[in-house]
Amino acid sequence: MIELTPHLDATKRIPLYEQLYEYMKREMLQGHIRKGTRLPSIRALSRHLSISRNTVEAAYAQLVAEGYIESMPRQGFVVQEFTEECGANGSLQKTYEHSPPTDAIKPIYDFRYGNIDITHFPHKVWRACMNEAMDAPLDELLWYGERQGDRKLRQEIVRYLFQARGIHCSCEQVVIGAGIHQMTGLLCQLFSSETDLIAMENPSYDGIRAVFTNHRYRIVPISLEKDGLNITELEQREANIVYVTPSHQLPLGMVLPIGKRQRLLKWAEKIDGFIIEDDYDSEFRYEGKPIPALKALDTQERVIYIGTFSKVLTPAIRVCYMVLPVRLLETFRKKFSCYNQPVATIVQKALALFMERGHLERHIRKMRNVYAKKRQALIAAIDENFGPNAIIIGEKAGLHLLVRFPHVTDVSGFVERAKHEGISIYSAAKYWFDPTTSPLPYILLGFGGMSEHEIKEGVRLLRGLFDAETLF
Amino acid sequence: MIELTPHLDATKRIPLYEQLYEYMKREMLQGHIRKGTRLPSIRALSRHLSISRNTVEAAYAQLVAEGYIESMPRQGFVVQEFTEECGANGSLQKTYEHSPPTDAIKPIYDFRYGNIDITHFPHKVWRACMNEAMDAPLDELLWYGERQGDRKLRQEIVRYLFQARGIHCSCEQVVIGAGIHQMTGLLCQLFSSETDLIAMENPSYDGIRAVFTNHRYRIVPISLEKDGLNITELEQREANIVYVTPSHQLPLGMVLPIGKRQRLLKWAEKIDGFIIEDDYDSEFRYEGKPIPALKALDTQERVIYIGTFSKVLTPAIRVCYMVLPVRLLETFRKKFSCYNQPVATIVQKALALFMERGHLERHIRKMRNVYAKKRQALIAAIDENFGPNAIIIGEKAGLHLLVRFPHVTDVSGFVERAKHEGISIYSAAKYWFDPTTSPLPYILLGFGGMSEHEIKEGVRLLRGLFDAETLF
Repeated sequence: MIELTPHLDATKRIPLYEQLYEYMKREMLQGHIRKGTRLPSIRALSRHLSISRNTVEAAYAQLVAEGYIESMPRQGFVVQEFTEECGANGSLQKTYEHSPPTDAIKPIYDFRYGNIDITHFPHKVWRACMNEAMDAPLDELLWYGERQGDRKLRQEIVRYLFQARGIHCSCEQVVIGAGIHQMTGLLCQLFSSETDLIAMENPSYDGIRAVFTNHRYRIVPISLEKDGLNITELEQREANIVYVTPSHQLPLGMVLPIGKRQRLLKWAEKIDGFIIEDDYDSEFRYEGKPIPALKALDTQERVIYIGTFSKVLTPAIRVCYMVLPVRLLETFRKKFSCYNQPVATIVQKALALFMERGHLERHIRKMRNVYAKKRQALIAAIDENFGPNAIIIGEKAGLHLLVRFPHVTDVSGFVERAKHEGISIYSAAKYWFDPTTSPLPYILLGFGGMSEHEIKEGVRLLRGLFDAETLF
Repeated sequence: MIELTPHLDATKRIPLYEQLYEYMKREMLQGHIRKGTRLPSIRALSRHLSISRNTVEAAYAQLVAEGYIESMPRQGFVVQEFTEECGANGSLQKTYEHSPPTDAIKPIYDFRYGNIDITHFPHKVWRACMNEAMDAPLDELLWYGERQGDRKLRQEIVRYLFQARGIHCSCEQVVIGAGIHQMTGLLCQLFSSETDLIAMENPSYDGIRAVFTNHRYRIVPISLEKDGLNITELEQREANIVYVTPSHQLPLGMVLPIGKRQRLLKWAEKIDGFIIEDDYDSEFRYEGKPIPALKALDTQERVIYIGTFSKVLTPAIRVCYMVLPVRLLETFRKKFSCYNQPVATIVQKALALFMERGHLERHIRKMRNVYAKKRQALIAAIDENFGPNAIIIGEKAGLHLLVRFPHVTDVSGFVERAKHEGISIYSAAKYWFDPTTSPLPYILLGFGGMSEHEIKEGVRLLRGLFDAETLF
């Protein structure tokens, strides 16, 4: 029988049993107590150390639970097999040299795509909705909630989609998601047993392309014509799912005309395929009223519609949604019967209240004017500073436009030089499936997050870069 | 030149241009205005209808934007090609017969796994944290936030993991997620270009198995021994990633002993593989202190640790987290450089405050006692009602246990009969890779969400079922 001589201190805050357990574990890990050793009985050790039997019992129980020792018939507690000194103190260097995440750097003038104006966010109203939502009965508030999302929120989305986007659907078809990447990930999983091909506009949103690629899909890039997706090309390719941005092509900005929309729907029907419509910023259209969604024409249930609150309200709540075709509902529910809804209940309830009371529609109306002015300021600034030396495209809608400076051929060098002046501008090349084939050196300017003054200053400083290099 | 005779009503709330646009769209869709038709000029139509030129211009602009008409040189506005009457009125029946989602049904006594006690949730404190979080500067509060999650929350998690789980890590390794299914989905994507094989304990959590399958992984089921995962079997199989629940095997409840933990770590090192440790309910251990995490022994950076707030606080906030091995950080950041953090900023900030002030630790201490009593009540009730006719396993930790009634062979029939009495109990068969090979007819009883009274009543009613059938 081995002798145990732990230093136990009853005045310490750590319970005695834990001190004993820690001592024995250390002794075993360091090889002082070996495999096969029979430990003293509980009674013997408690007498030996003058501590209560409960203390020894608790320490032994913990060692048993963790597999260090085992209670064997007629032998008492016996030390089990394990490797000594494995990880007793973490010797591996854990330093990880990291630069701060790129999304944390704040340039002075940031024309980043995706930024929005938060100065007009109705914080007081939102906060009131959050607090009212927290008044809900606890058994509604503290539970997982329905898998597809809060029912009231889904009903509000149905109402909104009908009024703003011409879409008829039922709340059974609506699924709430925690951002476009998570949501598109669900779609990738939904089709994973059917196909690994997905057609996409080329150029298109690189973030979604990454989602498909990360899910082992092969991308089938479809070229764009002046009026959007080349449907003939799509018809010739093998894919039977296509991801499109018909209301406002990302990044080029064109609208898919009605004729092509109808052909696209026909295509899906004919090959038993599906169309994923990403309607990311259709609320902000500055000429006429918003273009109805492709989904509004979808009588054959072929369109999966995706919308988001990131542009119209704030990305910080991380809420987006999709409308599934009725024919996909059963598969969806079967595949994801174990998945819980990813958005916090409280956020969903607050958003439902916010919409129910008309705050969202009011906010969108307000922001449409705000963004219209910013867009106007940007176009005017480009015109004033560059005149015919800048060509603008895709400026009719959304929160960004593309600009091409015919004198600039090295876009990445230009972007770098701008950065040194505190101006962040972005090459549009990454939107192309193969960035080296980007036909023209476009620069993407997002204006949502900038004030009119910043827009003017930013463009003026850009102009300064040209002077220095005497580009024109 | 065609003649247009819309009925325009200036007293309506709909703007005149929209009425004109709707009229023309309808006429075109119904085939009354055909492809190639030249529309009247803006000037001519405004004179003809006695409306302003701006009105006509706005209507035409919208039709151009949607692709119905186009402005052609020397011809004016010309109607484009599209199919008539496609989807003009949604005639397809959209009814979708649905039963209410199963997660909405509330039985009287529900022994569902995953339910927790919400009556002790510190709602007032949580609400105060939420409100304080909403006081943060708007540019922190309304933005996407850092991709891996709020930095302060990650720091709190690092601190918590060190104190409660013996894990040393830096906040650069922590990733916040919106629930285990979304989070595991990221891991599926992380490894998608490396392998499509994943080893799992058999039995194991079916929800995670679904995630892997939905991501096109092939499951390699590894059998369990009395003390958990059969490491020898794992070593003989091809997979180099394994998903395990070492602190509290789901559903059987055993703890992986130190010897096996060390062998598992060695296995990963030797084959350049990874171990996904799901530590879903380790905080609730009723004998001794919690078992340290496998990750605490991971000196070679082979363990991906997953934790959640769903059991210790509430599932409604939808927050979980993982600790990535340092060696995976670069790949992770590259693969997901476009993905935004899926949890709402406000929720993350509130949770960080809640933890910083010690509320989480206090709550866990309290709940450990609450659950210990419920567990005791359940064990006592089973003992009292069934005696030797019920065999309990896995009762030392967590919020569930398994019970086997040797007299019951048809578990699903028994579950059905119980349902008729208002008692929801669950067969454990679904946890097996192939449910038909479930070796013994276990029934899973979750006790987290039930009061002690409900537990007693539920078990007493179960006993009633036996009497009626004279099973013993």
